[in-house]
Amino acid sequence: MAKTSTLDRRAQPRKAASERWNTALTLIESNRILVRGYPLDEMMGRLGFAEAVYLLLMGELPTRAIGRMLNAVLVSSLDHGVTPPSTLATRNVATTGAPLKDCVASGILAFGPHHGGDIESCMLFLDRGLSLVRSGQTLQQAAEQIVDESAAANEVPPGFGHRIHTRDPRAARLFQMSLELELEGEHVRLIRAAERALTRHEQKFGRPMPVNVDGAIAAICADLGFAYELGNALFLISRLPGLIAHAHEERSRQDPMRQIDPKDHHYDGARERRLPDGSRT
Amino acid sequence: MAKTSTLDRRAQPRKAASERWNTALTLIESNRILVRGYPLDEMMGRLGFAEAVYLLLMGELPTRAIGRMLNAVLVSSLDHGVTPPSTLATRNVATTGAPLKDCVASGILAFGPHHGGDIESCMLFLDRGLSLVRSGQTLQQAAEQIVDESAAANEVPPGFGHRIHTRDPRAARLFQMSLELELEGEHVRLIRAAERALTRHEQKFGRPMPVNVDGAIAAICADLGFAYELGNALFLISRLPGLIAHAHEERSRQDPMRQIDPKDHHYDGARERRLPDGSRT
Amino acid sequence: MAKTSTLDRRAQPRKAASERWNTALTLIESNRILVRGYPLDEMMGRLGFAEAVYLLLMGELPTRAIGRMLNAVLVSSLDHGVTPPSTLATRNVATTGAPLKDCVASGILAFGPHHGGDIESCMLFLDRGLSLVRSGQTLQQAAEQIVDESAAANEVPPGFGHRIHTRDPRAARLFQMSLELELEGEHVRLIRAAERALTRHEQKFGRPMPVNVDGAIAAICADLGFAYELGNALFLISRLPGLIAHAHEERSRQDPMRQIDPKDHHYDGARERRLPDGSRT
Amino acid sequence: MAKTSTLDRRAQPRKAASERWNTALTLIESNRILVRGYPLDEMMGRLGFAEAVYLLLMGELPTRAIGRMLNAVLVSSLDHGVTPPSTLATRNVATTGAPLKDCVASGILAFGPHHGGDIESCMLFLDRGLSLVRSGQTLQQAAEQIVDESAAANEVPPGFGHRIHTRDPRAARLFQMSLELELEGEHVRLIRAAERALTRHEQKFGRPMPVNVDGAIAAICADLGFAYELGNALFLISRLPGLIAHAHEERSRQDPMRQIDPKDHHYDGARERRLPDGSRT
Repeated sequence: MAKTSTLDRRAQPRKAASERWNTALTLIESNRILVRGYPLDEMMGRLGFAEAVYLLLMGELPTRAIGRMLNAVLVSSLDHGVTPPSTLATRNVATTGAPLKDCVASGILAFGPHHGGDIESCMLFLDRGLSLVRSGQTLQQAAEQIVDESAAANEVPPGFGHRIHTRDPRAARLFQMSLELELEGEHVRLIRAAERALTRHEQKFGRPMPVNVDGAIAAICADLGFAYELGNALFLISRLPGLIAHAHEERSRQDPMRQIDPKDHHYDGARERRLPDGSRT
Repeated sequence: MAKTSTLDRRAQPRKAASERWNTALTLIESNRILVRGYPLDEMMGRLGFAEAVYLLLMGELPTRAIGRMLNAVLVSSLDHGVTPPSTLATRNVATTGAPLKDCVASGILAFGPHHGGDIESCMLFLDRGLSLVRSGQTLQQAAEQIVDESAAANEVPPGFGHRIHTRDPRAARLFQMSLELELEGEHVRLIRAAERALTRHEQKFGRPMPVNVDGAIAAICADLGFAYELGNALFLISRLPGLIAHAHEERSRQDPMRQIDPKDHHYDGARERRLPDGSRT
Repeated sequence: MAKTSTLDRRAQPRKAASERWNTALTLIESNRILVRGYPLDEMMGRLGFAEAVYLLLMGELPTRAIGRMLNAVLVSSLDHGVTPPSTLATRNVATTGAPLKDCVASGILAFGPHHGGDIESCMLFLDRGLSLVRSGQTLQQAAEQIVDESAAANEVPPGFGHRIHTRDPRAARLFQMSLELELEGEHVRLIRAAERALTRHEQKFGRPMPVNVDGAIAAICADLGFAYELGNALFLISRLPGLIAHAHEERSRQDPMRQIDPKDHHYDGARERRLPDGSRT
Repeated sequence: MAKTSTLDRRAQPRKAASERWNTALTLIESNRILVRGYPLDEMMGRLGFAEAVYLLLMGELPTRAIGRMLNAVLVSSLDHGVTPPSTLATRNVATTGAPLKDCVASGILAFGPHHGGDIESCMLFLDRGLSLVRSGQTLQQAAEQIVDESAAANEVPPGFGHRIHTRDPRAARLFQMSLELELEGEHVRLIRAAERALTRHEQKFGRPMPVNVDGAIAAICADLGFAYELGNALFLISRLPGLIAHAHEERSRQDPMRQIDPKDHHYDGARERRLPDGSRT
């Protein structure tokens, strides 16, 4: 958010009509497109999509390790079946015969504070912990304090717990890659300490509250230096194909104007199979 | 679109309440997520995002060549500066202080028939040409016929012409890659023949009408077997990071509630630079 | 839709940067707001909302009869319970904690070809019938022809049939008011003739196919001279309060992030009651 | 917002599949629609749209005075010309040829914290002042304290100031009607006291900061007992016809895919005119 107070915003005379405003993203001229300075047609074939997204959002090319990490982050939230409210909003729009873009726009609007938006909240939560470290606490002390504060407020901290998973396989894999790629930083270390600290409150919560995929993305993005709202943005990019797939399946396999009961769905897709050896990003 | 006529839709008794409906995309169980049969956590680190998108939408893993092609398609429309109406819609929502997801949902709604939607129209246009080939015409004859039909209707065919570019560098690069990766098929050959046929109408149109990036994506996606509406969907995935970048820049660099005049913008980003040697997807 | 062909759109040089574009809706000056020439603050208290909407959309004040008719049209589609896909899209966004505006924007996107969009389709359907009348057929002949054409295509004509109602009480009331207010025109007469003609196809459709509320609004709006897309627009205005009420109820009465099964809902509101005597618009 | 803490939300077992959920808005049965207990077809012709909206949102019929007040509130924000960001978002989507509903959904997303959302913020601001009155301060003291707090934070209080109007004619008319209809309550009295208190800070703000239309709606809605988020909702209902009118005008009068510069617009509509005598809601 811009820092201008409403005083400035409302009280100042409006800018002169001819005043220019700046953009640093993309230069467009006839037959020439530069994204952050790089010719877009040269990027094609030489940068993967995830690497190009990083360049556009952060302004510089990622290292090879960061590129691999970002690919994994984007793959991690690709889809989560038919029951998330974003998917149901998308399918309810699809059943009316609306264009695909309308279906996915509706699903994107469902990425609210309780769904996807946890990434930004968790980044703030972790930065509060790290400010305690800056003022002298150990990482473990800071983790315990921020977790205890949440528990005292009867709140599960953002980025923890899942209604279906007791151990989120996506979070585990992201942390493993972060370590292997030597990208693990203080946010990842803090969230893992917080996960351990949370076990002391397991009785209160009635079941395990492991780091979920939102929490893992939050910690990794924070270590990579992403701005808060761009953490959520990565989730949007990751999940958009899932919304598209559900809109397309709804229109391809179902009658229009049906009443969609999420409880009644049945999976009839491919059985479990393994990736061929050797593939890697 | 489902094939059910409205007769079926309105006249039939409603299905029994307990009837199940099917989905073949993603299986969700506790601590287990299978996308098209593959464990999602195994996909992370082994499939790039573009490859994972292909798997989700098409049901099978892409070949290495298709994966490279899809990366290039997704990079090709990453951003196009501040003047597209989708970008302006996004920035106008951003200036009100709305959440990032609202800004990008607004931009997605601007991918209408005249903006992004050309991909689906162009796929239909090419398939009409190929149906002429099936009935005995040569590719060249078919290209001339469909182009002449558009010209007779005073219409530029979908996928041709650009307000800024007289030779779209993104289209040229996509065609080059399609050839090098040995993915070029009859849709690409037909659109290139149509481009040549269009030069005969140059006087009518007053300037060159080259294949644009939408047309190139349309031909390549059609050769790869994508359904019509998934052609447009690839454009949505490609441009979403651009919408995010503009929303974020609007909030970071500008005062809220400003009046956004696209004519007045000025590029102050990185000067032209080259990608380091050796990078390739 | 503007009539410009894509030839004009893409081939012409862009307009001079300083060229002005026109708007005839509202004049804004310091401390002065004129809507279609009338001071907005004078309209307040002297025009009802429906009358002001008519003025804004049509450019002139409505007669008293048209004002009453428009109020009835706007009341007719105020809400239709929890099962329409627009309402379910809205509630699925609401359960994520998103702002109210996001919930209703999502619902508005569900007003697709099969839901709300029937008004525009029905206006076109009726105008096709009236063009037959212009070329010499009687109203009855024209009604039979357009109905037979739909039936031959296995299509219920737009504006007919309802999954829940066998006689739509809203349509009946709108027609009654149109007659009483002496606003009934050829579109209403044609749709009623078409309703009678449809009874001959009842066996095919398996049940009665009465005019529904969309059909009644379509005929009445067409008689009042509304443009096609403004017919649908009246439905948007009418239903927006319904979307708002459902979003607000979802947030007030339900836990966030619930899985919304439309089949499981139960009505626990006010029992049937009568309006006090004497009220009338 | 529901009061459930995230602890409850995530830790509790999911509800039994067959559990029913309640709605109190509208009962739908075959050929029978009850809105808050009243037959919808009886409401048509007997309740104006504004009265029906009140019934749906608040659960009971409005008095005649409240009905007149609500009509004026809904008329007050009908349109504000081409320069608000919501209108520009709508027009930028319209220029792409998107359906009308997409254009207005985009505009609705622009009703962010700085645009329309001030109503909810202002209701909260006023309720903070009234809590000071409950604890013993006079209305004047409370008004001065909350205004001073805002000024000390370099913030214009929500509901005050306008970039174009130095005296908002809509606010003045709403307050006049509130007094005449004997609906003025403590929120209106407090906001008027706050307006007077703000004059002491005029030097700081550099110009007058009168109550604007958002502030007037906020105070009146609060006096009528509307929930916070329904205050904003009234603005959505009021402005939707404006968004529709701009989308329709954009498509009727302009070429598609144009670059919309708000500075370049010119009003060519009706000259100032007076309402005929005698009209009143």
